[in-house]
Amino acid sequence: MDYFSSDIGNLIGELAKLPGIGLKSAQRLAFYLVQQPQERALGLADALIKARQTARTCECCCTLTDQPLCPICASPARNHRVIMVVENTRDLAAYEKTGKYEGVYHVLQGIISPMLGIGPGDIKLKELVARVTDAVEEIIIALNTSAEGDATSVYISKLVKPLGVKVSRIASGIPVGGDLEYIDELTLHRALEGRMQM
Amino acid sequence: MDYFSSDIGNLIGELAKLPGIGLKSAQRLAFYLVQQPQERALGLADALIKARQTARTCECCCTLTDQPLCPICASPARNHRVIMVVENTRDLAAYEKTGKYEGVYHVLQGIISPMLGIGPGDIKLKELVARVTDAVEEIIIALNTSAEGDATSVYISKLVKPLGVKVSRIASGIPVGGDLEYIDELTLHRALEGRMQM
Repeated sequence: MDYFSSDIGNLIGELAKLPGIGLKSAQRLAFYLVQQPQERALGLADALIKARQTARTCECCCTLTDQPLCPICASPARNHRVIMVVENTRDLAAYEKTGKYEGVYHVLQGIISPMLGIGPGDIKLKELVARVTDAVEEIIIALNTSAEGDATSVYISKLVKPLGVKVSRIASGIPVGGDLEYIDELTLHRALEGRMQM
Repeated sequence: MDYFSSDIGNLIGELAKLPGIGLKSAQRLAFYLVQQPQERALGLADALIKARQTARTCECCCTLTDQPLCPICASPARNHRVIMVVENTRDLAAYEKTGKYEGVYHVLQGIISPMLGIGPGDIKLKELVARVTDAVEEIIIALNTSAEGDATSVYISKLVKPLGVKVSRIASGIPVGGDLEYIDELTLHRALEGRMQM
């Protein structure tokens, strides 16, 4: 890429390392950024440096935050007797956006995957078990419905049920607005198994 | 977004301002970046700051670069008698990737668009006219085949032809591998008009 300049080429290279950003997008972003007013470009650089330097995991739920306790764990308005187990902070954000969940979370920071060499010791399971005291009423498992998600759900269930807590998993079935005709068989089967009395 | 932290929320906000990056992608990128080793995240921030600070336009062809003259204009190996006119540095990069063009470029940094209020004075036309001396043999116009691209091409042609230089425009027609059945009528018409003797 010696037809631009080494600095722009370097920026393109750094941007292209980001997940989901190919060389074309990286080029587009780099040209956009260097043509912005100085303070705009530096604003992004500053935000990045600051966020990376203050980033840490919440001591309670292991989500990404910049305080010892994340805003959710620190909030007295949340129901700390119900813990929803999610794979990562993105999934936490997805449930927060529904605005319907009032409990707290536990972020595993991964999922058990023998294929990728990720075992139970590599995700935040110890931290989950440590949180299950008498004060906790229910653990809601909200992992993806992949093979890994299913296996991890069963593993967690076996791990925390002996501690005398109710364990549930979010429903698997037809998405709202989904057309039966185009839904895969496994989902149809799960939707049937999980049918609810009307 | 008070369920993460102000710093991460701020980074997400900055990323979401970039073209083609929505809130979901911005979130994904932000979480990825703050979980990378410190030097990786700072590497991107540094590259951004450096590229923005050294970014300037080439004094000859107006492309983005970090030197007074871009590597192409500074190269004695290029044919400086042929100038290809492109809309922006991305289009220059696209032609450079073909590896077949040996002339130099002129980057307009925009295109005439009455709809967007961009007139001839807002793009690098003065700079193009100043480059057309007796030493220049041909101006190749390589603008998109949009209404704006067509209008700008005609404008440029009228501007530089009186200076006694040959003006051409890259061919419009069926893309390589394109299926006639699925090509729009205007393209079919242009391909017919631009037919070449075999």
